[in-house]
Amino acid sequence: MTPAPGRLLLMPNALDLGAAEVPLTDVLPGGVITQASRLLHWVVEDARSARAFLNRVNRITPLAQTLQETLISELPRTPKGPQRVIPGKAAKGSGPARPDAPMPTPWEQLLLPAVAGADIGLLSEAGLPGVADPGALLVAAAHDLGIPVVALSGPSAITLAIAASGLNGQSFVFHGYLQTDVNPRRARLRELEATSRRLQQTQVFIETPYRNAVMLEACLEVLQPTTRLAISCGLTLAEGWSLCRTAAQWKAAKVDLPDRVPAVFSLLG
Amino acid sequence: MTPAPGRLLLMPNALDLGAAEVPLTDVLPGGVITQASRLLHWVVEDARSARAFLNRVNRITPLAQTLQETLISELPRTPKGPQRVIPGKAAKGSGPARPDAPMPTPWEQLLLPAVAGADIGLLSEAGLPGVADPGALLVAAAHDLGIPVVALSGPSAITLAIAASGLNGQSFVFHGYLQTDVNPRRARLRELEATSRRLQQTQVFIETPYRNAVMLEACLEVLQPTTRLAISCGLTLAEGWSLCRTAAQWKAAKVDLPDRVPAVFSLLG
Repeated sequence: MTPAPGRLLLMPNALDLGAAEVPLTDVLPGGVITQASRLLHWVVEDARSARAFLNRVNRITPLAQTLQETLISELPRTPKGPQRVIPGKAAKGSGPARPDAPMPTPWEQLLLPAVAGADIGLLSEAGLPGVADPGALLVAAAHDLGIPVVALSGPSAITLAIAASGLNGQSFVFHGYLQTDVNPRRARLRELEATSRRLQQTQVFIETPYRNAVMLEACLEVLQPTTRLAISCGLTLAEGWSLCRTAAQWKAAKVDLPDRVPAVFSLLG
Repeated sequence: MTPAPGRLLLMPNALDLGAAEVPLTDVLPGGVITQASRLLHWVVEDARSARAFLNRVNRITPLAQTLQETLISELPRTPKGPQRVIPGKAAKGSGPARPDAPMPTPWEQLLLPAVAGADIGLLSEAGLPGVADPGALLVAAAHDLGIPVVALSGPSAITLAIAASGLNGQSFVFHGYLQTDVNPRRARLRELEATSRRLQQTQVFIETPYRNAVMLEACLEVLQPTTRLAISCGLTLAEGWSLCRTAAQWKAAKVDLPDRVPAVFSLLG
């Protein structure tokens, strides 16, 4: 008899990228921390940061087994499409011999513990897995295999930033990272501003922390003086802040953005 | 001397709309619940549900004062623009007599405790205030008055649904509610599908629970068979579920959507 499948639990992580400045109990629900402490199987963006996360969990709710006994697999670094077996060339040990059966994809392989009945935790380096990170392909594979997907309550920098912006939270777009080359980035910012003005739709994007200041400068070069720009820096951190000003006000204030803390930019023309 | 202003704390709420089926400690961080227990001043979407929230908080961390002593104001139901005083017609008791000074807007009035140095909690009926709810105008007023805005870690149905969808979480749009009339809604769904296909951008929208089934039907009438549609129903609830299937698979499966539980729809063509 096939066992009932385990679940894929989408485990939120803190937003401090392991700086651990803020107690985990300030950013994750106690019930979610307890669930994390009980999971044997993990698929993670980065094994090192996942172990750091589990050490933080362990200090609040002792893990059901040692970290050494916990099974941690990393997501494939380069997404690959499903691999199909070449008839007669099935790899050894790839399961019941069915020369016409497709080889499991890397994602299906990562989900085998759930197929066998165990819960798996999916963990990102920060925030919710699958949002602005490579976990979505594992979630898609779980849906394809009929494995229940459960999103556990936790923070996402994107929606926290929208809440803190005071800009339109009824209609917004998240674009991820913008171009880094000067001219394409300028053109893109102009386009986002025009769209936001036309649709009254908040435009949200992120930048690698060391380029935060360059991104702010680029925004102020391009945006109309009355366009509102909100920046959330270090969300949930003790020294974090959120400000929303017009481009003209940002120019006058000359704010220095930190180069090691993640920032989320939101604009509305 | 003017006191340092208090902060506007964006307080997350559970997603169960007061059904209280799930312990608050499963969906909100302990530290956030403690902060809620200490706040005297609240601005809320709905006073009744705010009192229910504070009763749930009180059962975990006793409130610093009784519910009767807690000051709860509702957000204005109809957003109004800033109201300017008519010279010579300033209301009594409206502060130092400056006939040319603008009357405070309803939002500025709600923020007076923060101007005087006290923290204020902003609370929505579900999830994060200011995201898909009317709180954003208060946040904008806080920024204008130089009141620090702090988003506390908590769930948003939108990002939880994107995580659970397995669709593109690097690029997505939240549209809020779509049209309810049949033909405009069809046209809109076709437009969203075309945009999602062109930009590989996940399109997210919500519906009033009693129209969940009608919305699914509308999607299946309009969407191409290969377009993927994800639905998250009752996120964070014990009976909640998330599924992602092609339009063709949804048609074949004939899923009944509950009519009392909030759902989030995401599609990617």
